[in-house]
Amino acid sequence: MKRLLLIGIGAGDPDHLTLQAVKAIAATDVFFIVDKGAEKRDLTDLRHQMIKDHAREPHRVVTATDPERDRTATAYAEAVEDWRERRGVLYHQMIDEALGENQVGAFLIWGDPGVYDSTLAALEGLPADIEIEVVPGVSAVAALTARHRIGLTRVARPVHLTTGRRLADEGPSADDMVVMLDARLAFEGLDDFDIYWGAYLGTPDEILVAGPVAEVAPKIRELRAEARERKGWIMDTYLLRRR
Amino acid sequence: MKRLLLIGIGAGDPDHLTLQAVKAIAATDVFFIVDKGAEKRDLTDLRHQMIKDHAREPHRVVTATDPERDRTATAYAEAVEDWRERRGVLYHQMIDEALGENQVGAFLIWGDPGVYDSTLAALEGLPADIEIEVVPGVSAVAALTARHRIGLTRVARPVHLTTGRRLADEGPSADDMVVMLDARLAFEGLDDFDIYWGAYLGTPDEILVAGPVAEVAPKIRELRAEARERKGWIMDTYLLRRR
Ligand SMILES: C[S@@+](CC[C@H](N)C(=O)[O-])C[C@H]1O[C@@H](n2cnc3c(N)ncnc32)[C@H](O)[C@@H]1O
Ligand SMILES: C[S@@+](CC[C@H](N)C(=O)[O-])C[C@H]1O[C@@H](n2cnc3c(N)ncnc32)[C@H](O)[C@@H]1O
Repeated sequence: MKRLLLIGIGAGDPDHLTLQAVKAIAATDVFFIVDKGAEKRDLTDLRHQMIKDHAREPHRVVTATDPERDRTATAYAEAVEDWRERRGVLYHQMIDEALGENQVGAFLIWGDPGVYDSTLAALEGLPADIEIEVVPGVSAVAALTARHRIGLTRVARPVHLTTGRRLADEGPSADDMVVMLDARLAFEGLDDFDIYWGAYLGTPDEILVAGPVAEVAPKIRELRAEARERKGWIMDTYLLRRR
Repeated sequence: MKRLLLIGIGAGDPDHLTLQAVKAIAATDVFFIVDKGAEKRDLTDLRHQMIKDHAREPHRVVTATDPERDRTATAYAEAVEDWRERRGVLYHQMIDEALGENQVGAFLIWGDPGVYDSTLAALEGLPADIEIEVVPGVSAVAALTARHRIGLTRVARPVHLTTGRRLADEGPSADDMVVMLDARLAFEGLDDFDIYWGAYLGTPDEILVAGPVAEVAPKIRELRAEARERKGWIMDTYLLRRR
């Protein structure tokens, strides 16, 4: 048998790691790290640091570069599907080549492995002798609400978790929404909402802004552009709450 | 100044604790523990164990019993509001009496403090010299999807987080829904959905069931009743995914 761990590492703060994740890292023989475009340096640096801090000796680190995704495609879901397939082939290959009998392999997954992450899908159809285990983590959603000291949910109310693309295409679907993967500032114009916005949560670059959308949207636009320019990439998440 | 920490402790597994939570526990002078009805023994036992494992000496533990909630009230949100108010008074009193100058107090919050938890609301209006800090945690949602080895979100799709009461009253609101606080098996009859159900996640009593609702609903009903009978309380969460 072989084991493959998908370890949630939290959303940016090395101390978001759970004790379960620390133990999982310490049990790993082979780490699979996939570099991703612009964000890659900072995001993979954190992973390498975690391995340095918590892995046992000896261990191996196998790195690969994520296939390019067609970001011009209008059929977003299809482009992602295609990219996932190529990614799947890459992942299967890496594992096949590097993971030996009775070994433990691991992917260090940003945030929580369940939240808008494609690793599980990319691993579908692995040989039957490889057992997958998922270690839950602190998602950017939990990091966002913690830093703003707000609840994700209001009493007895639902909350929707969605993407910037969805929000832009379909408009607000609820009084409480968390938006991820937004490259287009889809909150602009939603003037009956308050926004709780956070970028680079849990990192030294963290930026937080909260207030009525009508009031703070220009400030977020400016801070976001500035930070993106300076760092070369941005990760931001926000909660919209109807007033 | 005084500091008050709301520390997410994860959804049942002591190893769900983050390093940040471990450090926060170790920095705490006064722990506030509020017992809750039937579930109290198991849930507070875990908290006491975490304090034993991670707190520094000396520390104090202040316990209180949660005010009763009117569970017969038809106006659910109102009943919760009223209960919150009484709870608020209790919390403010505890803190006022026990938290000294320059001390750190803490509440150990089940799961993630942002997810259907009323502690933050109960602490509104604390004196200005008390600074609140929230430590994010692994929620039951993250634990559920990890144990079932599924994504919470499908590619480019939203997911709704809601309560059993809402689902029962309003019917399905999306193709992907996570349901918490369900005492009424609100998934029954939703025959075009798959369900991923988990009870006592992260604990030795964990139960997992997955499959088409039409097929597995009777089994969940039975397992749920049996476990509830045996332990005196139950905590379960599930994801519904339209096929
Ligand atoms: C591909 S998703 C992965 C989410 C991750 N699995 C999680 O649980 O947070 C990437 C998106 O997560 C959000 N995100 C992740 N980390 C973040 C951080 N540190 N600060 C702000 N947003 C973050 C952003 O919305 C980003 O576009
Ligand atoms: C008052 S809410 C608190 C949620 C918590 N803050 C969290 O992040 O998971 C309690 C509900 O959470 C869910 N829950 C919490 N812990 C759970 C566990 N270990 N297994 C299954 N469900 C759980 C159940 O739906 C329960 O009714």
